[in-house]
Amino acid sequence: MAEELILLDEWLSMYGMRARIALAEKEIKYEYREEDLDNKTQLLLQMNPIHKKIPVLIHNGKPICESIIIVEYVDELWKDKPSFLPSDPYQRSQARFWADFVNKKIGDAGWKIWAGKREGIEEAKKEFVEALKELEKELGDKPYFGGDSFGFVDIALISFSTWFYTYEALGNFKVEAECPKIIAWAKRCSQRESVSKSLADEKEVYEFVVGYRKSNHLD
Amino acid sequence: MAEELILLDEWLSMYGMRARIALAEKEIKYEYREEDLDNKTQLLLQMNPIHKKIPVLIHNGKPICESIIIVEYVDELWKDKPSFLPSDPYQRSQARFWADFVNKKIGDAGWKIWAGKREGIEEAKKEFVEALKELEKELGDKPYFGGDSFGFVDIALISFSTWFYTYEALGNFKVEAECPKIIAWAKRCSQRESVSKSLADEKEVYEFVVGYRKSNHLD
Repeated sequence: MAEELILLDEWLSMYGMRARIALAEKEIKYEYREEDLDNKTQLLLQMNPIHKKIPVLIHNGKPICESIIIVEYVDELWKDKPSFLPSDPYQRSQARFWADFVNKKIGDAGWKIWAGKREGIEEAKKEFVEALKELEKELGDKPYFGGDSFGFVDIALISFSTWFYTYEALGNFKVEAECPKIIAWAKRCSQRESVSKSLADEKEVYEFVVGYRKSNHLD
Repeated sequence: MAEELILLDEWLSMYGMRARIALAEKEIKYEYREEDLDNKTQLLLQMNPIHKKIPVLIHNGKPICESIIIVEYVDELWKDKPSFLPSDPYQRSQARFWADFVNKKIGDAGWKIWAGKREGIEEAKKEFVEALKELEKELGDKPYFGGDSFGFVDIALISFSTWFYTYEALGNFKVEAECPKIIAWAKRCSQRESVSKSLADEKEVYEFVVGYRKSNHLD
């Protein structure tokens, strides 16, 4: 059967980037469709009626929503390339724990920095740095969160690295000064083609955020 | 090797109940340890330093945290009993989607009902009912969310059913009037010993909440 694979996405989305990296790691061809989130397509609303969010992977007409679930789906379906999750159940549980941690802590604090009111940024920055330090501790001296190989937690976190520049500019801090190992890890990940071709440009992220903050009177 | 399995839990917790049901479904023996959340044990703080929350499953000294991750760990480790997740990757992604939906929508709205200020309850009740109606639509006429067999989404949601009585009393509504199929499903689930012996008593939940609201001046 001819496979039809469409990714509804938005280029700057750290969640969308996860799906792109996962598909690139597995060397899967798909049709990329950019969504305008101010004017969502009928297809997006129909494929993700619950959350109405990107990314949505549509596989032979059937939707998979939520970025981490997409990554796991891609991992489970295309098994000819190395798995993102380790095979040992305990190690799998730990990878899931840290991916969930990225969603809950980095995603949340990051959002409060870039899309929150100016007066809340200092507090959000503290939360962000605290969470990133926990991740740095978990990374330790390993090349990747998955150990010697790029895996599930790496995919979950690396998409945020292209937003660091924006967080730093708004929060007036440097990730490298706080978490040097995370920066070294991010550079290591960016050497992979799957990552470099899937990440948005950090300056474009910043320009988008400046415009967003202006039109939403956040400063 | 002798397996050592300890569950740090709190009897009224809907998240803890998920772990208990999963272990009971797999017929796994473990040591249950009730935590006093106002006075957490050193063991809990040491085993879950990040979130400091129950449930934590400690398997041969190593912790697994976050209820859904515990359920998946139990499912992956003990494979001699029927799996909670379907084998088909697409069906698995859908089960994960709905379990995540329960966490995000039912967990959140339920919390705003029982632990939120009185003036927010009406709005939280609307969110709760809306989310439960989505779940009822997803359930359709199937006996379980997993189809003919009790599975992942059933475990994720059933623990909330013992809190329905409390939500109803505080929100002045009846789940059965809004979502009759969910009530029929909950009764069906409760006929399983794994569920009936793992769920707290609804009146005890209510008494706890009344005390909690009083001491936190929520009414």
